Amino acid sequence: MANSKFEYVRHFEMADNMLPSTWLVVRIDGRGFHRFSQTHNFAKPNDRRAIELMNRCAIEVMKDIKDIILAYGQSDEYSFIIPKSSNLYSRRSSKISSTVVSLFASNYVMHWAEYFGEDKLQYAPCFDSRTVCYPNDKVLRDYLSWRQADCHINNLFNTTFWALVKSGMTEDAAEKHLRGSFSKDKNEILFVEFNINYNNIEPIYRKGSTIIRQKTEVTSISPRNGEEVKRIKLIPTAIYDDIIGQDFWDRHPELLAEKRR
Amino acid sequence: MANSKFEYVRHFEMADNMLPSTWLVVRIDGRGFHRFSQTHNFAKPNDRRAIELMNRCAIEVMKDIKDIILAYGQSDEYSFIIPKSSNLYSRRSSKISSTVVSLFASNYVMHWAEYFGEDKLQYAPCFDSRTVCYPNDKVLRDYLSWRQADCHINNLFNTTFWALVKSGMTEDAAEKHLRGSFSKDKNEILFVEFNINYNNIEPIYRKGSTIIRQKTEVTSISPRNGEEVKRIKLIPTAIYDDIIGQDFWDRHPELLAEKRR
Amino acid sequence: MANSKFEYVRHFEMADNMLPSTWLVVRIDGRGFHRFSQTHNFAKPNDRRAIELMNRCAIEVMKDIKDIILAYGQSDEYSFIIPKSSNLYSRRSSKISSTVVSLFASNYVMHWAEYFGEDKLQYAPCFDSRTVCYPNDKVLRDYLSWRQADCHINNLFNTTFWALVKSGMTEDAAEKHLRGSFSKDKNEILFVEFNINYNNIEPIYRKGSTIIRQKTEVTSISPRNGEEVKRIKLIPTAIYDDIIGQDFWDRHPELLAEKRR
Amino acid sequence: MANSKFEYVRHFEMADNMLPSTWLVVRIDGRGFHRFSQTHNFAKPNDRRAIELMNRCAIEVMKDIKDIILAYGQSDEYSFIIPKSSNLYSRRSSKISSTVVSLFASNYVMHWAEYFGEDKLQYAPCFDSRTVCYPNDKVLRDYLSWRQADCHINNLFNTTFWALVKSGMTEDAAEKHLRGSFSKDKNEILFVEFNINYNNIEPIYRKGSTIIRQKTEVTSISPRNGEEVKRIKLIPTAIYDDIIGQDFWDRHPELLAEKRR
Repeated sequence: MANSKFEYVRHFEMADNMLPSTWLVVRIDGRGFHRFSQTHNFAKPNDRRAIELMNRCAIEVMKDIKDIILAYGQSDEYSFIIPKSSNLYSRRSSKISSTVVSLFASNYVMHWAEYFGEDKLQYAPCFDSRTVCYPNDKVLRDYLSWRQADCHINNLFNTTFWALVKSGMTEDAAEKHLRGSFSKDKNEILFVEFNINYNNIEPIYRKGSTIIRQKTEVTSISPRNGEEVKRIKLIPTAIYDDIIGQDFWDRHPELLAEKRR
Repeated sequence: MANSKFEYVRHFEMADNMLPSTWLVVRIDGRGFHRFSQTHNFAKPNDRRAIELMNRCAIEVMKDIKDIILAYGQSDEYSFIIPKSSNLYSRRSSKISSTVVSLFASNYVMHWAEYFGEDKLQYAPCFDSRTVCYPNDKVLRDYLSWRQADCHINNLFNTTFWALVKSGMTEDAAEKHLRGSFSKDKNEILFVEFNINYNNIEPIYRKGSTIIRQKTEVTSISPRNGEEVKRIKLIPTAIYDDIIGQDFWDRHPELLAEKRR
Repeated sequence: MANSKFEYVRHFEMADNMLPSTWLVVRIDGRGFHRFSQTHNFAKPNDRRAIELMNRCAIEVMKDIKDIILAYGQSDEYSFIIPKSSNLYSRRSSKISSTVVSLFASNYVMHWAEYFGEDKLQYAPCFDSRTVCYPNDKVLRDYLSWRQADCHINNLFNTTFWALVKSGMTEDAAEKHLRGSFSKDKNEILFVEFNINYNNIEPIYRKGSTIIRQKTEVTSISPRNGEEVKRIKLIPTAIYDDIIGQDFWDRHPELLAEKRR
Repeated sequence: MANSKFEYVRHFEMADNMLPSTWLVVRIDGRGFHRFSQTHNFAKPNDRRAIELMNRCAIEVMKDIKDIILAYGQSDEYSFIIPKSSNLYSRRSSKISSTVVSLFASNYVMHWAEYFGEDKLQYAPCFDSRTVCYPNDKVLRDYLSWRQADCHINNLFNTTFWALVKSGMTEDAAEKHLRGSFSKDKNEILFVEFNINYNNIEPIYRKGSTIIRQKTEVTSISPRNGEEVKRIKLIPTAIYDDIIGQDFWDRHPELLAEKRR
């Protein structure tokens, strides 16, 4: 059949398998989300609906791709963690990256209305993604710490910036006012000028969202006798903990455990 | 700031730039579309709505990513062609792959209702993608020929298979009936048993869909004087031509031209 | 200057840095060493001169490239171990591979006469090399165990095979005689037919050669007063230990230690 | 056998095949050749013996690896050209790079005495190598032009620099004297101050060395009747032509021809 004569072009596809026995991190990032957030009137400094939609998408991705053991999200980005022992898609980088990002993007549109109600989605969102190897637990934790520290830095800045702007300062003036300031300066401004104790701000904003599979009681109706059945299932659930410190990892020892179910 | 101490993890991100001066092909493929097409009652052998939705998504991708000069789609796959001279995202493989596939996926959900009306989307679709280098025009054309030949083979098989099934044969029996058959056998079955001349079937099914930027007259209303203004713009448009033969390329010499606008 | 107009070709050189924080193993292999060993009348099953020349080359490589902490060799192959913390040549794969292999090859010719005396080198030897990442200590040790187990298997086979051949069997007959035999069968043949206790064979043949930096007393003459000066230096030295078991690693804890001088 | 339990470590070896249908260029570079040339008292600005030894090594590499169609060398570097159609070592990058560089290095030592006579080789030389894809004839030619332009620039500088130094200037003063000078300035210095017409300098210095397979009459003695037999063979031979201009390629059309023997 004529096909065979063209099939040789397959040999131009290069292997892109990731190194075995390393943590895989798929990070997706919103493309052009500055404009996207303006078009859709996202609240400043944080839009609760937008965050919860991001979390919902991450949960849907984790429901679909069982190899993901944890996801961490903040702002318009999400990182998905696949364990060292996983052989998901033979660890092919583009297969993993593209599956995660397309699931995320399609779920974003799918569930938009549940979070934004009457505020219509104006155009299709876009995310990029990449898959990175982290060879040991320490660098994996440092990766997650990097993202959570980034969340903290940005959120403290944004909280202070928008407080200034809402109080009447121009965006330019607020920008200049905060240039070169340290964390303690911003904490001070918030406290003194706006009576805001930054540490009392909701953790979802300060810490970002971590999705892990939590033991959850699930109630279903038995098809046999119509009775309620309660079972414990592992359900991806968003929490807003500090994941930089040791505590979180002590409370969830299964995350870094070598052996998996 | 604490951030810097973790930032070293960036160095685990490896460069994945594609070789310069080669054609880049991003191919996306529906994941689990057999189940997806059953859940959504796609017509057999071809669902016109599903094809037109795929084409719409490809058009939206091309409207967004100007570097793509041609897209070819059939079944649940689409290939996007980026010229040798392009420096899109510095030719980073994962950036290109993920941007294209997430745009495609989010548009798929976004525009579903325009094509499927009351038939609701049951769950979020998923596509994978990869980016492949093709170093010269011949192998690029052979790549596209490979996909179009594949379209032909599958469509001829599916058309015959579903004609048999609709006439009362079980799927198993139809499968066995066609096993080992040649193109001419299937053409014969269609003609003799079902009075179908395969070559008269609509090109969109036999040839798949090719999206190119066609000169199109666009009418707009001048904001100055309210008069109609007609302009020629290049609009991504689906055609259903044979792209294996030389004719198509002679008619569109700009596609393979070295110099671009 | 005319140069600049061509210099763009540099952009076709792709990055090939190896993942940070992983063990790097450079393995070199003799190309066509079956013919090479015949041309140069290597003794069978093992040629002491050839082994010592290989070890010498490995030692010279280690004297030159200080990042290598251990080398393991057997037959016509050698593996060089570079620690996780090393940033040798920015961890560029081809730079590391090629530097090691070319140093090894040039030293092989350079020192040939010291080991082979009157037996002239007939033609230039050739080795290939590759660099592989191993993400943790366990897989690194398993890699080295793999090579030493391979040494054992081959040496036991070769020792038995050549004993049979030297006793009058044809090579074909010896081959057939040993086909499908287990280790204990070969041990038995050696013991019963040739009165050889395999375990008494010199470790250099059974275990291969491991080069590590040993503390060595070095005597030099002071240029100031002409007196002898004794100092302890770390000198790459061949030993013939078992490196599969835990003992070796307990005796040399610095090899797997995270912190390096 | 115990081997199998460790053999899994093979899966850490990643594929590194080069894109099909592209020119492969293996470039080797002397490591630390500044010191090497001083230790061995290379003549300045060019050491004829060193150049001819480099050429000899390149010829030996080409005699061994038949896929190489051309090699170009200057200073302490050599580039080997492998055609688009070649499937040498399945186009594995490290296999190709390492084989070429180790052959080159071992031949360098092997043939040293033929060119340097009594001047003994003091230590083993080292070269690095890399393999780069060039997707079409133009970029391949531009690559070679880049190297030959580099040869010209360096040789003109070195010729002028060493003329100044030999005439009594210190190296520092000569360096300063030439800083920022153009080609015509250096040509002028050579002509006016040293009565040297740069264009009359031997092409081997100005153009570097190109090795191609030249039809050569080879005489051998027939073993049958003891008579002389003359045959035409393709023998790798050094020439010193301009390879930037079109002429060279017109005279050797087989080099860029698609079809090969």
